[in-house]
Amino acid sequence: MTDHTPDPAAPLSTFPAYAWPEGKRSAVLLSVDVDANSPLLWSLGNDAPQRLGIHEIRNFGPRTGLWRLVELFARFDFKASFYVPAHVAEQHPDMLPLLLKQGHEIGLHGYFHEIVSEVSDDEFTGALEASLELFVRQTGTKPVGFRSPAWEMTPHMLAEIKRLGLTYDSSLSGFDHPYEIDGLTEIPVQWAVDDAIFFKFEGGGRDRFPMQSGRMVLEDWRAEWRTLHRFGGLFTLTVHDWISGRAQRIALLEDLLQDIAGAQDTWVATAAEIAQHHQTSSNKGRFAVAAAIPAAIGPRRFGTKA
Amino acid sequence: MTDHTPDPAAPLSTFPAYAWPEGKRSAVLLSVDVDANSPLLWSLGNDAPQRLGIHEIRNFGPRTGLWRLVELFARFDFKASFYVPAHVAEQHPDMLPLLLKQGHEIGLHGYFHEIVSEVSDDEFTGALEASLELFVRQTGTKPVGFRSPAWEMTPHMLAEIKRLGLTYDSSLSGFDHPYEIDGLTEIPVQWAVDDAIFFKFEGGGRDRFPMQSGRMVLEDWRAEWRTLHRFGGLFTLTVHDWISGRAQRIALLEDLLQDIAGAQDTWVATAAEIAQHHQTSSNKGRFAVAAAIPAAIGPRRFGTKA
Amino acid sequence: MTDHTPDPAAPLSTFPAYAWPEGKRSAVLLSVDVDANSPLLWSLGNDAPQRLGIHEIRNFGPRTGLWRLVELFARFDFKASFYVPAHVAEQHPDMLPLLLKQGHEIGLHGYFHEIVSEVSDDEFTGALEASLELFVRQTGTKPVGFRSPAWEMTPHMLAEIKRLGLTYDSSLSGFDHPYEIDGLTEIPVQWAVDDAIFFKFEGGGRDRFPMQSGRMVLEDWRAEWRTLHRFGGLFTLTVHDWISGRAQRIALLEDLLQDIAGAQDTWVATAAEIAQHHQTSSNKGRFAVAAAIPAAIGPRRFGTKA
Amino acid sequence: MTDHTPDPAAPLSTFPAYAWPEGKRSAVLLSVDVDANSPLLWSLGNDAPQRLGIHEIRNFGPRTGLWRLVELFARFDFKASFYVPAHVAEQHPDMLPLLLKQGHEIGLHGYFHEIVSEVSDDEFTGALEASLELFVRQTGTKPVGFRSPAWEMTPHMLAEIKRLGLTYDSSLSGFDHPYEIDGLTEIPVQWAVDDAIFFKFEGGGRDRFPMQSGRMVLEDWRAEWRTLHRFGGLFTLTVHDWISGRAQRIALLEDLLQDIAGAQDTWVATAAEIAQHHQTSSNKGRFAVAAAIPAAIGPRRFGTKA
Repeated sequence: MTDHTPDPAAPLSTFPAYAWPEGKRSAVLLSVDVDANSPLLWSLGNDAPQRLGIHEIRNFGPRTGLWRLVELFARFDFKASFYVPAHVAEQHPDMLPLLLKQGHEIGLHGYFHEIVSEVSDDEFTGALEASLELFVRQTGTKPVGFRSPAWEMTPHMLAEIKRLGLTYDSSLSGFDHPYEIDGLTEIPVQWAVDDAIFFKFEGGGRDRFPMQSGRMVLEDWRAEWRTLHRFGGLFTLTVHDWISGRAQRIALLEDLLQDIAGAQDTWVATAAEIAQHHQTSSNKGRFAVAAAIPAAIGPRRFGTKA
Repeated sequence: MTDHTPDPAAPLSTFPAYAWPEGKRSAVLLSVDVDANSPLLWSLGNDAPQRLGIHEIRNFGPRTGLWRLVELFARFDFKASFYVPAHVAEQHPDMLPLLLKQGHEIGLHGYFHEIVSEVSDDEFTGALEASLELFVRQTGTKPVGFRSPAWEMTPHMLAEIKRLGLTYDSSLSGFDHPYEIDGLTEIPVQWAVDDAIFFKFEGGGRDRFPMQSGRMVLEDWRAEWRTLHRFGGLFTLTVHDWISGRAQRIALLEDLLQDIAGAQDTWVATAAEIAQHHQTSSNKGRFAVAAAIPAAIGPRRFGTKA
Repeated sequence: MTDHTPDPAAPLSTFPAYAWPEGKRSAVLLSVDVDANSPLLWSLGNDAPQRLGIHEIRNFGPRTGLWRLVELFARFDFKASFYVPAHVAEQHPDMLPLLLKQGHEIGLHGYFHEIVSEVSDDEFTGALEASLELFVRQTGTKPVGFRSPAWEMTPHMLAEIKRLGLTYDSSLSGFDHPYEIDGLTEIPVQWAVDDAIFFKFEGGGRDRFPMQSGRMVLEDWRAEWRTLHRFGGLFTLTVHDWISGRAQRIALLEDLLQDIAGAQDTWVATAAEIAQHHQTSSNKGRFAVAAAIPAAIGPRRFGTKA
Repeated sequence: MTDHTPDPAAPLSTFPAYAWPEGKRSAVLLSVDVDANSPLLWSLGNDAPQRLGIHEIRNFGPRTGLWRLVELFARFDFKASFYVPAHVAEQHPDMLPLLLKQGHEIGLHGYFHEIVSEVSDDEFTGALEASLELFVRQTGTKPVGFRSPAWEMTPHMLAEIKRLGLTYDSSLSGFDHPYEIDGLTEIPVQWAVDDAIFFKFEGGGRDRFPMQSGRMVLEDWRAEWRTLHRFGGLFTLTVHDWISGRAQRIALLEDLLQDIAGAQDTWVATAAEIAQHHQTSSNKGRFAVAAAIPAAIGPRRFGTKA
């Protein structure tokens, strides 16, 4: 493991390139975090107010939005990775089987979309084991991937994911192609290509940001895709059922997927397929980092070298 | 009532389609929440500061903005639904009769634009009954629809709306076509096509968001309209007298309405007409949900199945 | 005084039109609030931190930005209205004479850019009298207009402005053409055409909003101008020395002024000229409102008519 | 030292023009603040949470983003100024030598990206001396420039920078060309052409602003560059390793640099070169200001001249 600074004695052209399958210069992962109202339930805790609107806004996802996304992917014959909190799967018992039937990957996403900073290590393990058990019970197959709610991870979480035999995590942003962290394959995400930071809006005074321009986000997503394709990276798009299942977001995605479908030399694959490629290719070990959390800087403030 | 997950044994083409009147593939509802300064008065409570500016900004609505909207709709011969807090109607006693004279629908919108989370069930009932009485007194006719201030609802509110003989609510976002919730017809709204979340700006440090680009919002509203038309949904636009009555917003709406007017196979109708269609068509009962507020998840945290 | 609801018995075409000078269908007021670092000093109060950056950012205004605006207006031969806090004029004693020499109007804007809600009536009067005295001392002439820092007003302020013989206020937004409030001529402003809500950025964690797209703001300002011109209104642009004196903002204004200069039938004038027109034309008395601040609604909540 | 108000007796064309090297009408400084995770470590203090995601997002900078910027500049043969917190250089000991090898300037940027308002004068001096010592130890040469973390300065900081023999600061925004403050050469920055205020996004609830449109920011940066070129100013671009090293940001910068490269009469130079030009040209002394922090206005509120 190195800090990945290029060798100063080498020309810059040695900048490490990620190796994709024969004939492909980049990859695309279409991922859907099927949150429905689980983050809302989690954030409300025990004091859930008796109001309908904030739930109905999110119920649009499992009723309509998710299936519009499924239809959209089918039109392009793209297979995607769907990360589903166990609680959502419990409320909609036909969801996981239907997604598998369509050829998609399903992955773990917490039990109640619990936030890393609000649960203990033991609680995380309990939620992970219970989610895994539910997925197996509902589908008869074991998922191989995990995505953390809100994209935070700890060394404990990485260890538990490995212990339970999952083959990858997809929650971190340390490279823009697959890498390894503490030996676990990481399929990286990126906020700039997540729909929630631009379009999530619930009303009721809970929103922190205004809704951004879909047209402009599309331009930026296209730029990210086009440029990552040039750089030979992995373009990981993340969308949500109740956000991107809305009509104008489907139109936006349609335009983006049209661009991607037009490139012969990109590989559209599920995270499971990409992780398997990473583990069985020359990339393995070339981009490995430790899950090191830096020490607090307090004790050595201001160069006094105490 | 179901959770509306498609039948996994069926092909995806059974995705349920909403049935519109003969020859129409979608519908458009133009709605105006005529708030004037009522939300401001409500939020100020008993401690209204002795300052003029924040009121004058909103007084622009009943003085000028509302009538520009009325003129705009008249130019296209579109009939709209105007939701008016009773207090606004009281301050401007000619408003409701004039809107009716122009062929528009008028609906209830609270007495003082009171916010659901700040009033008791009894207070809501009192405000609803008083609003209804005022509307009848001022116009001689009984309105049939209700839209909640800030778009929140409770099971009690749904029950009271039914008890008083109103035929629909228009405050929730669980589908993007009409549906039923606890048996009441719901004409859904959507934040993404509401002017306030993009353009509301009062000054005085009260604003939470910057004013967004009108040009970009127009692009997104056009995309929502165009795509919902393809999907056969209901495009519910919501604007406000003091916000969208401003010159540049009228120009924006003019461009949007031009698009809509160019589509022969969309049905521009009031919410009352759309609700009546829903109740008398094959759609009735096909999209029915319960006003179920999920239990707090606290007791079953982390899959421990306590 | 009326509430300006159109006569319900009349056709909508009686919507009141504002009368501009012969041959003109609309008017344009270019106004500059020359705040420099006065709002910062005011907000810091007695505990001004010993840091330079937030001052230097604003010092750019009197050093460079203000004069770029003056040059820009000169290129179009447009006369503007500059509202200058007395403290800024004190720090830059050549500023007011130079602005007058260029043919512009100068108006009052508080002594220390003091905020209405933070000063008593007596303090407002003291600041107003001292500002007026300083302006007369520095220029030998008496200004006729006042613009409130942060655009808030009280009935006391309106009364004091009249008592001191000023002829107009320019701080409120109740119409989009001149009107009268408590008998004082009001030359209205509008947040949507103010540069600060889009572009103000100081750093240091004080900013509430991100900087918006200049290109998109230009589109919206053009739309507001173009549509207000159609409606026969007053387009009041407000810019600030340290914000719009920056290079890209000058380019933006150049494009906007080019549009305005291309319209033969608009009247570009100072606020003083527009106020005089209002007072001596058929408009006088047609758009008169009282400075009425609505009573708190607490006592009559929920239509209980207590 | 003057307040830089133009001489009212002179025609406006005497507006002071900055003199650039023979044949050049403007200058461009490409600057990179190589923060990596140092601002995060600083803000977390002693209570750094045991979470990986917020670090991995910033680790992308030294692993990939920084080197993409270096490659981009190399493609245009532009030399840039890289400001590196000593702690980042410590973690990546090959970084400074490699940047120098590529012909770029390296400058000081705090030890731990410590924020001015959170450290004492003594602590600042300690951090400055330790950073300088580390730079000399790692590279064998002494840097000449300083940029303050978060762009704040005090008179003490200016004095210490001079005392240690550095030749310029680049943290303030009082002009848009070089100037002198307390006798130290200032190479000014500007928030409007800084990537962080538009694109910084870390997740985890720490973000204050939504991510802005890259396409629109590019338009505004182009407008700033084009117009400053006309005005004969200095266009100082500031980008960050972990923000602008992302694929779509590299594409944005590529478009911007293409514009700049197309202008024969602009001077792309490092801050050190620009500072040296300032000190040895006719500009010296023409734009000199004192590091004066205005007195609190409390004691003379409202023109009472107490």
